[in-house]
Amino acid sequence: MPSISKKGQAMPASPIRKLVPYAEAAKKRGVEVLHLNIGQPDIHTPEVALEAVRNNKLSVVEYSHSAGNESYRKGLAAYYQARRIPVSHEQIIITTGGSEALFFGMMACFNPGDELIIPEPFYTNYNAFAIQAGITVVPVRSTIQEGFALPPASAFEKLITPRTKGILICNPGNPTGALYSRQELETLRDIVLKHDLFLFSDEVYREFCYDGAAHISAMELKGIEQNVVLIDSVSKRYSMCGARIGAFVTRNAELLGTAMKFAQARLSPPTYGQIASEAALQAPKSYFEAVNLEYRERRNTLVNGLNTIPGVTCPMPKGAFYCVAELPIDDADRFCVWLLEEFEHKGHTVMMAPASGFYAHPGPGKKQVRLAYVLEKHKLELAVECLRHGLEAYARIPAMAAPAKA
Amino acid sequence: MPSISKKGQAMPASPIRKLVPYAEAAKKRGVEVLHLNIGQPDIHTPEVALEAVRNNKLSVVEYSHSAGNESYRKGLAAYYQARRIPVSHEQIIITTGGSEALFFGMMACFNPGDELIIPEPFYTNYNAFAIQAGITVVPVRSTIQEGFALPPASAFEKLITPRTKGILICNPGNPTGALYSRQELETLRDIVLKHDLFLFSDEVYREFCYDGAAHISAMELKGIEQNVVLIDSVSKRYSMCGARIGAFVTRNAELLGTAMKFAQARLSPPTYGQIASEAALQAPKSYFEAVNLEYRERRNTLVNGLNTIPGVTCPMPKGAFYCVAELPIDDADRFCVWLLEEFEHKGHTVMMAPASGFYAHPGPGKKQVRLAYVLEKHKLELAVECLRHGLEAYARIPAMAAPAKA
Repeated sequence: MPSISKKGQAMPASPIRKLVPYAEAAKKRGVEVLHLNIGQPDIHTPEVALEAVRNNKLSVVEYSHSAGNESYRKGLAAYYQARRIPVSHEQIIITTGGSEALFFGMMACFNPGDELIIPEPFYTNYNAFAIQAGITVVPVRSTIQEGFALPPASAFEKLITPRTKGILICNPGNPTGALYSRQELETLRDIVLKHDLFLFSDEVYREFCYDGAAHISAMELKGIEQNVVLIDSVSKRYSMCGARIGAFVTRNAELLGTAMKFAQARLSPPTYGQIASEAALQAPKSYFEAVNLEYRERRNTLVNGLNTIPGVTCPMPKGAFYCVAELPIDDADRFCVWLLEEFEHKGHTVMMAPASGFYAHPGPGKKQVRLAYVLEKHKLELAVECLRHGLEAYARIPAMAAPAKA
Repeated sequence: MPSISKKGQAMPASPIRKLVPYAEAAKKRGVEVLHLNIGQPDIHTPEVALEAVRNNKLSVVEYSHSAGNESYRKGLAAYYQARRIPVSHEQIIITTGGSEALFFGMMACFNPGDELIIPEPFYTNYNAFAIQAGITVVPVRSTIQEGFALPPASAFEKLITPRTKGILICNPGNPTGALYSRQELETLRDIVLKHDLFLFSDEVYREFCYDGAAHISAMELKGIEQNVVLIDSVSKRYSMCGARIGAFVTRNAELLGTAMKFAQARLSPPTYGQIASEAALQAPKSYFEAVNLEYRERRNTLVNGLNTIPGVTCPMPKGAFYCVAELPIDDADRFCVWLLEEFEHKGHTVMMAPASGFYAHPGPGKKQVRLAYVLEKHKLELAVECLRHGLEAYARIPAMAAPAKA
């Protein structure tokens, strides 16, 4: 039997899905599992998008243009323009999810061995795509103490080598919920300009900013127009993760032309998803207002609740629908398994994502978890109580107080 | 401005799409272009698939399982079992088109520099995905004189080196329409076994076999169960290219587990496309019978017609909906442009794919074109007459008779 590839061996298994068998076993025992582990929102997809798919008149489900339907690209360009992102439809390639946009960008910009700096903790799959492209990910540490703010320029400068070719940010951030200010983005702009780097900006959570904070796109930054790649997706924006529609956006014509060759190789993005996404552009302002209000309340419920638990630290996120909390435990991986395998509180337990999966270095995230506030408020209240009792019970187990095994 | 990657530079531009501007200009002049250049069928998608999407009751378009919906995988396993392909749903990963299945396989099996032998001419995008994975494609020549039959074992043996790690076939073949016999497949099996190679079998045209010929899957071959990867897609089978649903199928558990890591990184295949694909499994036998009858008539019309043109050779394909013809010209790229730019017959012209794009070596395909018989019979008759007159007119142009420039 021939051996599998080195990249195949190096690819990370999903850190979240590792816990799935434990959750399934808990459910079989009759325990209700509160899923705070994944970014699958329960929010309804806009009716206008659902209806457009239901009312489609296709008799042949044809390939679309490799860059996506022109009418959708024009609509999307207008959406961006309304958000101070001046791009034309010819600067957009519709992709199969944000994932594919990221992949096209990594393949088109980086040679094997090139270095990409990413503020840590970061979305696990950045690593997976970097491995596929042969990129060396160089994490730059952001800390829970500073609310996961962008690390200072000096921290980036220390990491820059002749192989550094780009910086990747997620704004607002998954897993941290951090939202970068104009000043932070201008710091980034200066670094990018000074070292002539690509700046990949994953802005799929753009519409989820709270407390009146404005989202500032990397596409607004002056002087690095040829360096910026916007990674986008409808998955979270319209709660339609399954549509698998994203976008690769750049004003760099050579890069766009290169990404188009990757787009042509895979023929086209999904037709039905494009129908849904184009229609979703008509979602009324009230849709986003209602969704944002809902998420803000959920965030307040969860984060304020967490901070009432002794020993728990959780900065208040300004965007997205995640938070990272530090818990009074040794090893979050072990604790998350324990919650599913051994614990219940009034018939419930909590499933969370151990933060180790979001760090390139194993150390700093060891006591941290990511929580997605994608459940209704009363379930989040229940989750906080579960966690409070879980932490108390866990602290009483002598074996668990011992240092975790590697 | 930072430079783009070497792989980005190496990626081929679509050889078909190069001609698009010429076709658009012809249309602007009022010439009707008969599109024999692409594999986008005009056949209706099964009504049961279209209706399933129209009647879907989703209120949240969620991610599916990374391997695809279990109910669809179970249905697909039953479809395979009915075709002498014994696999379970746990040996299937639903992918975003056949393209993604191919990509997962290449990434999971091959290290950069590994060699993959492919009978030539072959589907252009095999090259594109090989470049992405850093694979060296080693073409093994099949010839129009032999109807693009599988080259003899000795031809493969000559090409095998310590870096050879796999063979990729397309059966029935795009662009040739060749259908491999059991004997040809057993020849392949012996080579695969002797050298412990992976065998990728792209069988997306499985349902399109003519004149009573049976399709034999590489999954039926004994003794190489751990070596075979089946690449599949609903695009052609149900004329729903835009659904973007394919499948990666293998009985090699380690390989499947590795491919799953790539599948998890991109989260999930498209939800709507899966709804359509699962429903399409209920398409009645009469659907395939009618479609096959239609394609067989089209094939006969086109291929018999082509062979009445002086100097044209076109073997009768046994499967898929393509044929490769050799024309009495110097350079098919130049001729295909000329047909669009300078020629018309009764207000029509023909758009074909120059075969050069399907060969790794530039020479042997220089006088060949690929034609897809995806139009109604009367249009194919018209296309043959266009081509007959076109070739006559082209032969009278002195400049065109001169050897083509490089």
